[in-house]
Amino acid sequence: MTRWKPGARERLAAAAFELFVEQGFAATTVPQITERAGLTTRTFFRHFADKREVLFAAEDELPAVVDAQMAHAPEGMDPLQLIEIGLREVANDRFDGLHDYLRTRRAIVRSDSGLRERELRKSLILAEAATTGFRNRGEDDFTATLAAHISVTAFNIAIDRWLDQDDPLPLPDIVSETLMRLRAITSDPLP
Amino acid sequence: MTRWKPGARERLAAAAFELFVEQGFAATTVPQITERAGLTTRTFFRHFADKREVLFAAEDELPAVVDAQMAHAPEGMDPLQLIEIGLREVANDRFDGLHDYLRTRRAIVRSDSGLRERELRKSLILAEAATTGFRNRGEDDFTATLAAHISVTAFNIAIDRWLDQDDPLPLPDIVSETLMRLRAITSDPLP
Repeated sequence: MTRWKPGARERLAAAAFELFVEQGFAATTVPQITERAGLTTRTFFRHFADKREVLFAAEDELPAVVDAQMAHAPEGMDPLQLIEIGLREVANDRFDGLHDYLRTRRAIVRSDSGLRERELRKSLILAEAATTGFRNRGEDDFTATLAAHISVTAFNIAIDRWLDQDDPLPLPDIVSETLMRLRAITSDPLP
Repeated sequence: MTRWKPGARERLAAAAFELFVEQGFAATTVPQITERAGLTTRTFFRHFADKREVLFAAEDELPAVVDAQMAHAPEGMDPLQLIEIGLREVANDRFDGLHDYLRTRRAIVRSDSGLRERELRKSLILAEAATTGFRNRGEDDFTATLAAHISVTAFNIAIDRWLDQDDPLPLPDIVSETLMRLRAITSDPLP
């Protein structure tokens, strides 16, 4: 039962998500999804490459968000300041209110090795967008690559920590906590 | 032409690698691999789940290596010291002399989205092994997870930097350089 009826894309996504929850990702077919949404298979493939992409559609915009955000951040910030402000902003703008949905989504992704690999690719795409962002702000390639990948790694760990909580703290606070912990780990002097 | 003839597994791996280089990963079939190796398809599937796994066979042992290494490292090291010693050791023991092979392997992996995703999963498996290692050394879950994932992120960036070099510096030195850079990025004070 689809309980809301906005555009075709949203109806398809809602129907797919319901079916993934009810019967599992592997057992769900595109015809089942379109039948529940009351739409045709042709319409489905106009919006999504396959059933897997339904779970990743919302994240497609993230690289562009990262781009815009890094381009507009004030001058003169060092990478970690930029990382903290940027990740808190993304957490606030794009994750607020989605705790329960994202927790269910995480369970679906974890149930299937293809989905887990796709999720990892999403992180890589994001890290590449952030690398470009740091480079455009004048960081050298090495620093840009490292800062970007570390940001995405820290963000993923923060999101996981957030989704583990039944009565969750705000994600932006968990982001700050994660970066503080990262700083503690890496500030110990080398031998 | 297979130029060396040790065990079946090695012959299959060498034949597959040659074919991936000559005609691409996608165009290579298991029967072509077994024909070149002078072995049967049945033998192939006794050693590898599919042609993709040929490229990941050597890394299957890495989690166990990480486990053993972390269990035997001296007491009282902080996470970053442990990371540096551990990664330098892995670089030395498992990567030395493989620069050209790994550069070619990287080109094959980059040519195929399925391989790229599998490569990311490999990193995740490694990060999970390292998380367990840190936890067994008494770190709390949060620090263990973060230290492990940061280690793998830094190691991957170090390997990439190494493979980018035509006349490569020793990988252990690039590992140390990467961790120093990481420390520089994260030691800047937060606002």
